Amino acid sequence: MTDTRIIADDIALARRLADAAWTAIRPHFRNLNGVDHKSGTAKSGFDPVTEADRAAELAMRTIISQERPADGVTGEEFPDTDSTSGWRWYFDPIDGTRAFVGGLPVWTTLIALVNPEGVPVIGVIDQPVVGERYIGWPGSAVMETASGTTPIRVSGNPDLRTATIATTDPFIFTPPEQGAWNHLRATARITRYGLDAYAYARVAGGTLDLVAESCLKAWDVAALIPVVRGAGGIATNWRGEAPALGGQIVCAASEGILEQALLALRRAAD
Amino acid sequence: MTDTRIIADDIALARRLADAAWTAIRPHFRNLNGVDHKSGTAKSGFDPVTEADRAAELAMRTIISQERPADGVTGEEFPDTDSTSGWRWYFDPIDGTRAFVGGLPVWTTLIALVNPEGVPVIGVIDQPVVGERYIGWPGSAVMETASGTTPIRVSGNPDLRTATIATTDPFIFTPPEQGAWNHLRATARITRYGLDAYAYARVAGGTLDLVAESCLKAWDVAALIPVVRGAGGIATNWRGEAPALGGQIVCAASEGILEQALLALRRAAD
Repeated sequence: MTDTRIIADDIALARRLADAAWTAIRPHFRNLNGVDHKSGTAKSGFDPVTEADRAAELAMRTIISQERPADGVTGEEFPDTDSTSGWRWYFDPIDGTRAFVGGLPVWTTLIALVNPEGVPVIGVIDQPVVGERYIGWPGSAVMETASGTTPIRVSGNPDLRTATIATTDPFIFTPPEQGAWNHLRATARITRYGLDAYAYARVAGGTLDLVAESCLKAWDVAALIPVVRGAGGIATNWRGEAPALGGQIVCAASEGILEQALLALRRAAD
Repeated sequence: MTDTRIIADDIALARRLADAAWTAIRPHFRNLNGVDHKSGTAKSGFDPVTEADRAAELAMRTIISQERPADGVTGEEFPDTDSTSGWRWYFDPIDGTRAFVGGLPVWTTLIALVNPEGVPVIGVIDQPVVGERYIGWPGSAVMETASGTTPIRVSGNPDLRTATIATTDPFIFTPPEQGAWNHLRATARITRYGLDAYAYARVAGGTLDLVAESCLKAWDVAALIPVVRGAGGIATNWRGEAPALGGQIVCAASEGILEQALLALRRAAD
């Protein structure tokens, strides 16, 4: 099954999934009636699950049930469906809900196809407000915009001391993770926050050099790996091993930066 | 002089200045030969002043010298020019150089026109990668995109406890400022970082509710005030007084949020 599947057809389908997600999300962006400004003071764990998120996931699930009925689907908003093919799609319609609520153009739609061995073979990181769609598959990654399709490549910057690095939220790290992150931040030249999956797209695009995060879910991770690897980057867990679909992830633009980062990250590895 | 000046003509000129800046900047975005990845480990105060920054400021200064020779110009990259009209333009071609270096679409070009009384009357916050241009003047603010021009309005959210707030870099705050910021962050629902002037544009656009920053320069501040005020927002210093062109600034979507924030910010006011 793995060998005979035509990946190009799945890439074409993934593009249509991303289009369908944006059609569902667009009416809600910067128009969030779904977020209740009057719901009180509860703050911890605030997760603005919007109508947009559910509508987009449903739109993508409908397409899969029609066009790939043998494939399973895993997403944040609805229960898993069974896979009889062994292949599984992972959807996160709005990765970066806090950026979305803030009206910022750095949330993304994540789409991945994972093979029966559990390896993500296609990843899509779509940012439709900017109009940038990053797609990765074994051996390649591209950025698609209204101007056309551009092959992308990691920076290759070999030294953490001149690197631009990112993590989404330093406040969700455990104390050991925070210590590791502070080491990276003190070594690197520029640090950015709040980018969610868009940061991995920009590692693939060659303008960020490292992203390290923890507490990720399968639908957060599956799409990132083909994009970063397709662009020549490295994706591992915080021990430098093959990453799981979740937990602690580090993506780097070079072996040199990864090795420097792992000196710190390993001390906080799960 | 103030009364007879036709602001609409200056707004039209400001649009052309923004276009000229992007023409100069565009070849460098995500193509930063100007940033030396091999320049060693010096980190503190790293400020990637790119060729793009200088080229864009020069392009805008050239237009002013030709079309408004009586006006002065203040910008980050070159010395002030004299004003015989009493009016002065403020330029920051790339506000958010760290976002720019990271290839992120949240840096902006800032353009302001300040009247002889020292009050900014036109402000432009331009983000050409996303294709969003925010323009404010007394009584109005708009967002211009390829799809057209939309009047913008602050959220009006009255309560910091349900607010989405932002500051660019919590690590540049003094300890008292950090204490004040931590109070806001602990009270608000969502906090975002690293947005520079784009955050003020989104306060004006109604998706962020408060931005508080310190250590700002005149060319950082002058453009923000007309945009936020034109959209119905409030801009003050950390004492709740008329803001200076620099230093500590807070912009809010409502009187309610501003008053709650000033309880903390006043304790760290200069």
